Amino acid sequence: MAGKVDKVKARLPRGLVDRHPADIRAVDEMVTKIREVYELYGFEPVETPLIEYTEALGKFLPDQDRPNEGVFSFQDEDEQWLSLRYDLTAPLARHVAENFNEIQLPYRTYRAGWVFRNEKPGPGRFRQFMQFDADTVGAPGVAADAEMCMMMADVMEALGIKRGDYVIRVNNRKVLDGVMEAIGLGGEENAGRRLTVLRAIDKLDKFGPEGVRLLLGPGRWDGGKEGEGDFTKGAGLDGARIDVLFEALDPSSMKVNRPDTSMPGLENTKGGLLVRQPATLSSNNIRIEAESYIEGIQELEQIRLLIEGAGYGPDRIRIDPSVVRGLEYYTGPVFEAELTFPVTNEKGETVQFGSVGGGGRYDGLVSRFRGQPVRATGFSIGVSRLMTALKNLGKLGESDVLAPVLVTVMDGDMAAMGKYQDFTQKLRAAGIRAEMYQGNWKKFGNQLKYADRRGAPLAIIQGADEREKGEVQIKDLIEGKQLSAEIESNEEWREARVAQFSVPEGELVEAVKRVLEAQAKERGEQ
Amino acid sequence: MAGKVDKVKARLPRGLVDRHPADIRAVDEMVTKIREVYELYGFEPVETPLIEYTEALGKFLPDQDRPNEGVFSFQDEDEQWLSLRYDLTAPLARHVAENFNEIQLPYRTYRAGWVFRNEKPGPGRFRQFMQFDADTVGAPGVAADAEMCMMMADVMEALGIKRGDYVIRVNNRKVLDGVMEAIGLGGEENAGRRLTVLRAIDKLDKFGPEGVRLLLGPGRWDGGKEGEGDFTKGAGLDGARIDVLFEALDPSSMKVNRPDTSMPGLENTKGGLLVRQPATLSSNNIRIEAESYIEGIQELEQIRLLIEGAGYGPDRIRIDPSVVRGLEYYTGPVFEAELTFPVTNEKGETVQFGSVGGGGRYDGLVSRFRGQPVRATGFSIGVSRLMTALKNLGKLGESDVLAPVLVTVMDGDMAAMGKYQDFTQKLRAAGIRAEMYQGNWKKFGNQLKYADRRGAPLAIIQGADEREKGEVQIKDLIEGKQLSAEIESNEEWREARVAQFSVPEGELVEAVKRVLEAQAKERGEQ
Repeated sequence: MAGKVDKVKARLPRGLVDRHPADIRAVDEMVTKIREVYELYGFEPVETPLIEYTEALGKFLPDQDRPNEGVFSFQDEDEQWLSLRYDLTAPLARHVAENFNEIQLPYRTYRAGWVFRNEKPGPGRFRQFMQFDADTVGAPGVAADAEMCMMMADVMEALGIKRGDYVIRVNNRKVLDGVMEAIGLGGEENAGRRLTVLRAIDKLDKFGPEGVRLLLGPGRWDGGKEGEGDFTKGAGLDGARIDVLFEALDPSSMKVNRPDTSMPGLENTKGGLLVRQPATLSSNNIRIEAESYIEGIQELEQIRLLIEGAGYGPDRIRIDPSVVRGLEYYTGPVFEAELTFPVTNEKGETVQFGSVGGGGRYDGLVSRFRGQPVRATGFSIGVSRLMTALKNLGKLGESDVLAPVLVTVMDGDMAAMGKYQDFTQKLRAAGIRAEMYQGNWKKFGNQLKYADRRGAPLAIIQGADEREKGEVQIKDLIEGKQLSAEIESNEEWREARVAQFSVPEGELVEAVKRVLEAQAKERGEQ
Repeated sequence: MAGKVDKVKARLPRGLVDRHPADIRAVDEMVTKIREVYELYGFEPVETPLIEYTEALGKFLPDQDRPNEGVFSFQDEDEQWLSLRYDLTAPLARHVAENFNEIQLPYRTYRAGWVFRNEKPGPGRFRQFMQFDADTVGAPGVAADAEMCMMMADVMEALGIKRGDYVIRVNNRKVLDGVMEAIGLGGEENAGRRLTVLRAIDKLDKFGPEGVRLLLGPGRWDGGKEGEGDFTKGAGLDGARIDVLFEALDPSSMKVNRPDTSMPGLENTKGGLLVRQPATLSSNNIRIEAESYIEGIQELEQIRLLIEGAGYGPDRIRIDPSVVRGLEYYTGPVFEAELTFPVTNEKGETVQFGSVGGGGRYDGLVSRFRGQPVRATGFSIGVSRLMTALKNLGKLGESDVLAPVLVTVMDGDMAAMGKYQDFTQKLRAAGIRAEMYQGNWKKFGNQLKYADRRGAPLAIIQGADEREKGEVQIKDLIEGKQLSAEIESNEEWREARVAQFSVPEGELVEAVKRVLEAQAKERGEQ
């Protein structure tokens, strides 16, 4: 089909990867555990396709200033634009709006699926990755947001991440909106700048306070110095305004999750009705009177009361004003699941593992289609990233799938081949993983090498002599490996036919079972 | 965000569908059973991403004459063309070629995944659907093809499809190639016409012999009459040549799977060495001497011997010269899994359910990249189509997932809400699916309506009175439904508080467990 000249190059586009057995099995195991928690919380599986109309997805990506707006897009036959979904939330909003009359609200659903970002790949940053989301649509109160936080905490523990190694951090977009209004970033005309501020703050973990100050102010060079790397334009705020923002981001300024003190703007109500009053931040004595700020603080206090009522303390869920989330569509509470144990990054520095998922309230997403508010909240787990974390913690056991028994091929004629095939099928019928060698059978050494690299527990061998006698050889490859380490010369090993014995054909399955049981026992004893 | 004027329309592009809980759970159940068979045969999971370079996928689709060649494509930032995969075989070939030095051959892998066809959707014909493939790469002999057929048969039975309701039909592309050479369609210059012939024959089930004769000859109008519907250009063969093809497609002409007779071109060898000799078909006395024909017949005979050796008779796997498969890349044995039980089609006719999967040998796919032959064979199951079939057979049980217990909300203050939340968490901690009502709690009737539509087994209710007494009400919604059918007036029913009782808060979980157990027992007795 292809000569040497016009050979096609075998390569994956960058930012995409093939998945191998260990990772696939690990993700399956993880997804199963996450699903069990979602089901326990009363959520049902609902999935959408990978392709949507581009306009249905909207433009909410943090990196929308990049080429092609961070999304893979293409035109349909009728020239309408289609896109690969970049998350699972925007398609869910479309699904709810499209089936609004059939759907019973509150609508509690979950889904795992691939999402795509058409952006510059980097270490641990792929253009296709898996998310596992849960959403409650038609839920007006913060009780639904509180439930999301508790469910995230339960997911972490179901995966074996112990308390203290993770934390769910909660904030409210309304709080930051109020602060931004106080420093003159209110109004429709400042929407773009507010988004720049959000995204700058979202990079706190990545760039530290100094980097974020640059992004809030004049802008930042990727390389750290002027002229080095790419330049990201800043929000253009002056130092005083940046100070106010930083004060607002400081957990000690908000004083929630501390029942003995009160948050600015909120009387300490000990669970009773909340009193609205304006707050004053000490930086520049700026008074924050925005309705949204007070609402945001109240909602956070309600979340605190609900989760504490259900026994979730700040060791699991913590209110933290520095959480913002990069996506534009959040309208209220936002949350982030963070792993707090230390890992070593590419630069050799010890850092916290960081975010493995998050979400928030998105009251505007469904109403884009319906022109009336449909209140919703949800969260998304980054499956691949969480898997990396679990590997770090040693919480993903080695696969317990046993490699197959190899039925070797000594003769290629159909009568012999039919026999090998028959042995293989008999083993499978008894529930034993087995395969007949399918490569070029003429080099017997290759067959044993293959069995070794596959980790086959034993090999079945039948030459013409054995066939005539109606017998078959069973070679215990695990014991053989141990013994061969003890025997000095190759020759001696071959002559000893270590760990190999002969049985009548009719006893093959029973004999294989016995060897596998003995091996399992030995593994158990180690 | 969006006013009434610029509302976005909520709709899916045609040929794409959302998936609901029952279907998702059914597919999961099915995929698990298929995976168990693949694992038993010694295959390992390996997956590729959904996007590939367009050139890596090649142009092998049956509908490549359609706009955009049946594939969704788009350009990367560097202007190289990317496509969504249209099957799982072409990406596997790329994966093997790219990692050839690390891969241990024979390479036995499986994968389930979404594939995409940019073509006209129709009933049961989607632009995104799931395939579940298994492949052996680096397998020169037909033993690997025989194994594929046996594995497909085992998959059918693992899914509960009984022997006689399915059949695996096997043919060999080489046989048809030989016949085509004999009627003057040999050589590179006739490659296009040979493909047209293959695709015409592949439509035998769909259009019947008369329709296929048209496709092999002058061409066919979709509507059945000239000028009606689209016109498909034919292969332009004359009647005599078409007769030869039809004879070659007739199972009785090949006489394999009948040990007492011989195939044309093959001595009856009873398992011994095969004798090559040219075959003569009776139509027009055409003599088929092509090497490929004889090779093809020999391979089929070897497959027959291997599967019979392993105990698989023609009730499970049958050699049938009318199988061709529509994809261009097959080079040897091809197979098709067909369900033979009758169903009623859209037109109200009784037909066989038909194909649910298939595959074949594709020795050229990896060598496109490597310039040296890499022999491979595999098959693909159409997951969605097979699920439809299993539904028809009643082999997909109703989901046994119990709907969650509903904790209702009688009061919205934080103290009460904290309690409801706490009840919910306690039930979940005991492994009981539960949810607190997250809609607008003020209309209590809506909460019970929600519980009913969700199928909730029971509801938890606590008003201010109960809260004061430290009690909680449990309402058995299943028993309630039965009793309410017996009680005549609404008023009487409300007063009777049927199937509702009160327990101390501390006994909530135990009481719920008792009710659920009683319900389970009653379900078991029905």
